[in-house]
Amino acid sequence: MKVSQLLGERFKDRAFEIESQNLMTRGGYMKLVGNGIYSLFTPAKRIQNKIEQILREEMDAIDGQEVLFPVVMPASIWQQSGRWDSIGKELLRFKDRSGADMVLGMTHEEAAVHMAMNVAGTYQKYPFMIYQIQTKFRDEPRARGGLIRVREFTMKDAYSFHTSQEDLEKYYERAYRAYERIYARAGVPEVVAVKSDSGMMGGKVSHEFMLLCDIGEDSIVICPECGYRANMEAAETLVQNEKDEISESLQEVFTGDAKTIDEVCALLGKAAVKSCKAVVYQRNADDSYVLIFTRGDLEINETKLTNYLKAEVHPAVDIDAANLTAGNIGPVNLNTTATVLFDRSIQDASNLVCGANKEEYHYTGFTPSRDLPEDTLYLDLSKTQNGFECPSCHKHSIRISRGIEVGNIFQLGKRYTEAMGMTFDDASGNRINPIMGCYGIGVGRLIASVCEVRHDDYGPIWPITIAPWQVEVCALRIDNPDVRAAADRLYKELTDAGIEVLYDDRPVSAGVLFSDADLLGAPIRVVVSPKTLSRGGYELSARDKSFREDIDPQFAVSEVFQKIAALTQAINEKVPERI
Amino acid sequence: MKVSQLLGERFKDRAFEIESQNLMTRGGYMKLVGNGIYSLFTPAKRIQNKIEQILREEMDAIDGQEVLFPVVMPASIWQQSGRWDSIGKELLRFKDRSGADMVLGMTHEEAAVHMAMNVAGTYQKYPFMIYQIQTKFRDEPRARGGLIRVREFTMKDAYSFHTSQEDLEKYYERAYRAYERIYARAGVPEVVAVKSDSGMMGGKVSHEFMLLCDIGEDSIVICPECGYRANMEAAETLVQNEKDEISESLQEVFTGDAKTIDEVCALLGKAAVKSCKAVVYQRNADDSYVLIFTRGDLEINETKLTNYLKAEVHPAVDIDAANLTAGNIGPVNLNTTATVLFDRSIQDASNLVCGANKEEYHYTGFTPSRDLPEDTLYLDLSKTQNGFECPSCHKHSIRISRGIEVGNIFQLGKRYTEAMGMTFDDASGNRINPIMGCYGIGVGRLIASVCEVRHDDYGPIWPITIAPWQVEVCALRIDNPDVRAAADRLYKELTDAGIEVLYDDRPVSAGVLFSDADLLGAPIRVVVSPKTLSRGGYELSARDKSFREDIDPQFAVSEVFQKIAALTQAINEKVPERI
Repeated sequence: MKVSQLLGERFKDRAFEIESQNLMTRGGYMKLVGNGIYSLFTPAKRIQNKIEQILREEMDAIDGQEVLFPVVMPASIWQQSGRWDSIGKELLRFKDRSGADMVLGMTHEEAAVHMAMNVAGTYQKYPFMIYQIQTKFRDEPRARGGLIRVREFTMKDAYSFHTSQEDLEKYYERAYRAYERIYARAGVPEVVAVKSDSGMMGGKVSHEFMLLCDIGEDSIVICPECGYRANMEAAETLVQNEKDEISESLQEVFTGDAKTIDEVCALLGKAAVKSCKAVVYQRNADDSYVLIFTRGDLEINETKLTNYLKAEVHPAVDIDAANLTAGNIGPVNLNTTATVLFDRSIQDASNLVCGANKEEYHYTGFTPSRDLPEDTLYLDLSKTQNGFECPSCHKHSIRISRGIEVGNIFQLGKRYTEAMGMTFDDASGNRINPIMGCYGIGVGRLIASVCEVRHDDYGPIWPITIAPWQVEVCALRIDNPDVRAAADRLYKELTDAGIEVLYDDRPVSAGVLFSDADLLGAPIRVVVSPKTLSRGGYELSARDKSFREDIDPQFAVSEVFQKIAALTQAINEKVPERI
Repeated sequence: MKVSQLLGERFKDRAFEIESQNLMTRGGYMKLVGNGIYSLFTPAKRIQNKIEQILREEMDAIDGQEVLFPVVMPASIWQQSGRWDSIGKELLRFKDRSGADMVLGMTHEEAAVHMAMNVAGTYQKYPFMIYQIQTKFRDEPRARGGLIRVREFTMKDAYSFHTSQEDLEKYYERAYRAYERIYARAGVPEVVAVKSDSGMMGGKVSHEFMLLCDIGEDSIVICPECGYRANMEAAETLVQNEKDEISESLQEVFTGDAKTIDEVCALLGKAAVKSCKAVVYQRNADDSYVLIFTRGDLEINETKLTNYLKAEVHPAVDIDAANLTAGNIGPVNLNTTATVLFDRSIQDASNLVCGANKEEYHYTGFTPSRDLPEDTLYLDLSKTQNGFECPSCHKHSIRISRGIEVGNIFQLGKRYTEAMGMTFDDASGNRINPIMGCYGIGVGRLIASVCEVRHDDYGPIWPITIAPWQVEVCALRIDNPDVRAAADRLYKELTDAGIEVLYDDRPVSAGVLFSDADLLGAPIRVVVSPKTLSRGGYELSARDKSFREDIDPQFAVSEVFQKIAALTQAINEKVPERI
């Protein structure tokens, strides 16, 4: 491919905060068509094709059968699963010309069960896995960050079917390993799997694969001591409270206008850890109130709360109807219609400040073990923090990092097969719902994420396994007949040898030529210029600056082959074995 | 792949009239999800992947740049082109969560111009071609025939941009040849290009690529003498009229209740060719009338009529407002508000029967050259027929055949670039709208069409270049340990050699095994059974019955390789050279 013919322009303006979005826009990789909807130019499409091929090989290697589900589906199968009602506006619904309700696929559990239903009626057919690589649409309210969070995207989604939980777990391990291989092959072996909450997907065990970087939207809880990893939603919180020498009595104190826990603590000269705060939510379904008491320095983990309540909630908008004294709510002498919960962070705490359920007054000396009923239930409802105790090795080593979710795997259970009535006959002739797993990777987000962690100030540094082109030939001073002849010949030799070559044959300045080459990110570069020719050949260099050397035209092809092999080898060394 | 694991069942019932739909349903290739919407099982997806690869190679070879446009597009770009208003309900429109108007892409001219706009501003960038392979949705009112006519489909669509008509024409030739190569490589070299009418796409010259077969929805006009080909809409009609010895005078005759031209001719003992009939249409826009006189044995070609009028029309529903005497309309003494047109089939005819514009009366002896004004314009508005004169070699050799349209190419002109305001600067600095071409192939329809012309009573006979698997190993009596061992070994040897092998390892009867193999259509089959082992090896045969021979296990891999090479060679021999 010649740069003179390549559609898409490269430019200098830095328009976006997120670097991958900047570089991929400036590099002519994509163009915004509508909110969260992009067209991809050839460089991005070539990267996508390479990632799709890696995905296909790894899915086939774990016995996946590639299939194709529709983008547009009738509402009926989503009504069968119950998700027609339970999912919000991110599921795009519309009517076709006949007035029938349809949806745009944002995920394909229903389509997978529809496909497998009636053709997997006996246990001998199990386990099996079907997967597709297909366009999805999710009517995302907050598209952002270029390809990081879009509305339309290409996704690899896989669905496995099993006769037992044991069999699912065995397969889940293979899929987990396949995922590790995929990220390593794409040049980001540092992607980590974290335990996650399965949310709307149903099921219990699930993992998110996270690429750690500052622009990530997710908080990941990591223990560098033992390797424990979980996303914030799923991470257990372990809290210590210092034992006090003196046990204070519960005492009402005037606090006037001080309402927030910070104001009250400041007024009374207490640390936030020595306070107990009230947080009020409402259930989405009926606006009924849920009141949680937790330690003053902690935040409520809404996922843990939702899972405990088995109901969606939102922060309370107006607490008048709950008979609560806003700013002075406390756990003692409380009279409310709200559901009252206690976080375990206060269980063994003592001498805390808390509200007195009375305008302008708080208590000091609140000691839950003494002041609350003996049968009080203490729950894990808060978010963990830097330096907290690791639930695995119990050192005080927890670190919170930011990460981009680049894939996920779920043990779905029977959620969909039960709802849609899919069964198989076991060896004894019993009709049983199969157990499912599902496994997703968004291709565009993976591309952007790789860019986010593999770039310098000048552009992406694509790993050789997914680079749009392996090599760029830069002809500097193409108006010079010797340069033109040598560069044309080199382009032909490399292309004929089966190497993927981008050839910048434009009569542009060295500045434009090299800044465009940086933006297009080919890992290997060969410069042909009057200067290199006067030194007897070309200059071979790496986009990541790991080498730069003169080469003899006679050995150019074999030198380039060696560099490709070395870069590929460096990536392959980090790919774990299949299991 | 083992058949025991392959998802999808094969069965015997013949449920559909169209054979490809039958065989691909019965063979476990696809499953209906909704009206005109299918999921594809692995055998179909594998065929699709192979066709996509052929498409990619042929598009790249004519300097195509693979890109990706969105499935969901904002209405705005369709409003710019004017098609938001001009296309009917087949363009699926909906609102997203923010209330914005969106469409599902049924074609991507707008997206292609949107992508190229602002990045192809100077003539040096031209010509260029961008293409994608992507899901499309067309809200087709009459989905039919399995994958032949669906609502959701995978399509390769390409868009070329040029600075001059000459350049477009040069490129168009290359695309035409690429299409010939694609069909030949897919195993259907008999696909023919026919001149077509461009319809809603705009532009002038266009071709449809047609696979001739009885289930085709299109009528194709072919001259076997000289190779002339056109679709019915675009075919010129040449009509002869016998010269009569005697010239009758125009005479009013009583015809009573006889209204249709057949009834009138029967009553008067005349052949239909000796009559002139009236056909009435109405313009869609304002219901105004258009009256055409043509020879009694001919049918009006509505596309020719539409093109002449530059207006869409429909057969008249009610002709009261046109001051016409239904059943007795004639060209003489006519007093009407309708636009009156004359087909050239009557220009040199004589002594015709025609209406007298008076209840219960017709004329005989109508001779247009005498009875109509000298300046009467005679137009080509009728459909040609078997045995008519070829417009190219002028023999009376026209044949009408049925065909399936498996692709099309259009010279679009400036229709979209003008409407959307895309320009480039030519060498003199003038701002000019580029000229476009577009080139489409529906992948699913091509698969079904190949099946339609490459099958026997038992199943598809896939060409080796697109077959889901090149070879099927059939283990007959897998319960026999020798058979199991030999078949397992053969499967491994062939797979390790890089051959695509389907292995039927199920403990089923020979009947089930062979009928399933027929339905899955692998072009080469190796049977391992107690009988073949007793003869010292395996039986190698072709799905198309072109060979059947015993082979020595020691040479099995090389024998299979030779057969693959021979079948591939037979296909490649029919692939024309690139230009």
